[in-house]
Amino acid sequence: LCLAPIPASAHLKFGVNGKFKILQVADMHFATGATTRCEDVLPSQTAHCSDLNTTAFMSRVIAAEKPDLIVFTGDNIFGADAIDAKKSLNAAFAPAIASKIPWVAVLGNHDQESTLTRQGLMNHIVKLPNTLSQVNPPEAAHYIDGFGNYNLQVHGAADSSLQNKSVLNLYLLDSGDYSKVDSLNSKYDWIKTSQQFWFDRTSKRLQKEYNAKPNPQVGSAPGLAFFHIPLPEFWSFDSTNTTKGVRQEPISSATTNSGFFTTLVTRGDVKSVFVGHDHVNDFCGELKGLNLCYGGGFGYHAYGKAGWERRARVVVVDLNKKSNGSWGDVKSIRTWKRLDDEHLSVIDTQLLWNSSAKGLVVPRL
Amino acid sequence: LCLAPIPASAHLKFGVNGKFKILQVADMHFATGATTRCEDVLPSQTAHCSDLNTTAFMSRVIAAEKPDLIVFTGDNIFGADAIDAKKSLNAAFAPAIASKIPWVAVLGNHDQESTLTRQGLMNHIVKLPNTLSQVNPPEAAHYIDGFGNYNLQVHGAADSSLQNKSVLNLYLLDSGDYSKVDSLNSKYDWIKTSQQFWFDRTSKRLQKEYNAKPNPQVGSAPGLAFFHIPLPEFWSFDSTNTTKGVRQEPISSATTNSGFFTTLVTRGDVKSVFVGHDHVNDFCGELKGLNLCYGGGFGYHAYGKAGWERRARVVVVDLNKKSNGSWGDVKSIRTWKRLDDEHLSVIDTQLLWNSSAKGLVVPRL
Repeated sequence: LCLAPIPASAHLKFGVNGKFKILQVADMHFATGATTRCEDVLPSQTAHCSDLNTTAFMSRVIAAEKPDLIVFTGDNIFGADAIDAKKSLNAAFAPAIASKIPWVAVLGNHDQESTLTRQGLMNHIVKLPNTLSQVNPPEAAHYIDGFGNYNLQVHGAADSSLQNKSVLNLYLLDSGDYSKVDSLNSKYDWIKTSQQFWFDRTSKRLQKEYNAKPNPQVGSAPGLAFFHIPLPEFWSFDSTNTTKGVRQEPISSATTNSGFFTTLVTRGDVKSVFVGHDHVNDFCGELKGLNLCYGGGFGYHAYGKAGWERRARVVVVDLNKKSNGSWGDVKSIRTWKRLDDEHLSVIDTQLLWNSSAKGLVVPRL
Repeated sequence: LCLAPIPASAHLKFGVNGKFKILQVADMHFATGATTRCEDVLPSQTAHCSDLNTTAFMSRVIAAEKPDLIVFTGDNIFGADAIDAKKSLNAAFAPAIASKIPWVAVLGNHDQESTLTRQGLMNHIVKLPNTLSQVNPPEAAHYIDGFGNYNLQVHGAADSSLQNKSVLNLYLLDSGDYSKVDSLNSKYDWIKTSQQFWFDRTSKRLQKEYNAKPNPQVGSAPGLAFFHIPLPEFWSFDSTNTTKGVRQEPISSATTNSGFFTTLVTRGDVKSVFVGHDHVNDFCGELKGLNLCYGGGFGYHAYGKAGWERRARVVVVDLNKKSNGSWGDVKSIRTWKRLDDEHLSVIDTQLLWNSSAKGLVVPRL
């Protein structure tokens, strides 16, 4: 008999309510805590505002939403103002750790500007309690660029026929910090060929498992991708053509196109990308069947817009209910945002993807 | 003692004159030979013009240039009018085969429109005399997309200290035919993540060998890349900002960016890309340090422009002469075109890359 425990990372699963809820926290920009002042808040807020407001917001939104997973999409700490990166990371993630909810993080462009390298940051993060973060996937560690590339499988509901199969795949990627290639003249970095290759291989492997016995499924399980720096294709949107949310600043993507949008759409399983980086953009837009979503700025020691509340994104994935009453594969992916106001207002609720719409794809002539 | 012969593919080398000359032949569009009529020629040429004019042009330009390698960049045959793909291929390549000069081919978007699949075409091509073409690199055959991805090493001059080291690397890639991804709404295909990953890995391996003992060299040996469909970045040029040559039609690239330009510039060794596909464009343009060059249409059964001569591109790579008089590493990469007129006129001679200019790169602030 084999009763060895499966690693925690394989154990995400849908609830008995047929739902899996993710809280995305973008750009905490945590520094030292109580002594670190807020940026861009109303004059009435200034005197008593610090990193602790970021902490309080997180505790409140976790309590209100009770997510199954918390995803931090980078700029978790604002390195330049963090005296000790480990202490800042520990403090930044503290409400997530205290909640006992599984959580994961990727890096932004500011995390490494303190006392730890990007590798050092991920090495520290993966040792924190309740995290499913990984430095890099073991099978790709010898070739992949960056630190903090990994995938998570979310199994079907307990006691359903898909309880041992991943019905939702999460891809976490390191979008880097600043370009090292002078001639490309891009300020920000991008997702490299090696990372896209790993994504493509992983997605294909997961599909094979999804299609395999027992309980072989058709097609691919839907996926969601999380990273920090937006793709250049986010430039396709302004506030007139988003599906929900606003664009209030330029898209700070790389100025060169590394092809990840093409790679994602070609592969086809990922239905939505979630990024941070641009704090006062919080839109979702749909391009060629892929949703491109910002989280919206979460942290108080990050630039923002006074009077425009700090916010977090919630993503809820629902399962299909089968005729026998048990849970099946993924039915829909919905999202909304929570504002850090008195009532943690819910705004911009929208459907990102619906399994029943799959038949509507019209083949190109 | 190990006296096993090195495979022919490893044996390209610079001549005792310190030069390596490549003839690029783009878009022959060969069909059945004498019975296949020419397109877009002057009324005075129409009556006696057929695929045999393509053959005659090739024989003449080979005799005039005496290249060290001939590279066919796809649409070698026009499949829809080729009754037997093998016969058409054999006839199309006949002047190259007769010349005894090493030659290689990649596929365009029309080659497979006859009796052979793309894999079948490459399987046939690699068995023809004097070719160094490969179906796919053995180490990547299990993951790479397409057929006809491979690299060639060009060793330093005989009896020089670099005679056993590749000082020039050629990358041949399959840019596919038509997009299979409906949602991306692109007519033409593109170079996939898996191919870019292979390129990146190969380039890094070749640099390690270049930097290794004996005779360790600094940096990377320069490279040249050949494929059929232009990159979207060719759109950066019109006839006002090319370095030489003309743009007389749109760029028929994929309408999605798969990132190969970024991958190439990031890696940095490839100094110029050579494509075909758009027959009446024959320019080179320089973008972020990378030259993007068209070959210009070669074949008579391909659309063209009456009175605008069919043409071929020549690329000459010169070695540095060392103080002791022997040949060293690569000094420069030059190009010109040959027109199929009475005198095989040479036009648009230009320098694409010069090793002494390397020091001029200004690091980004």
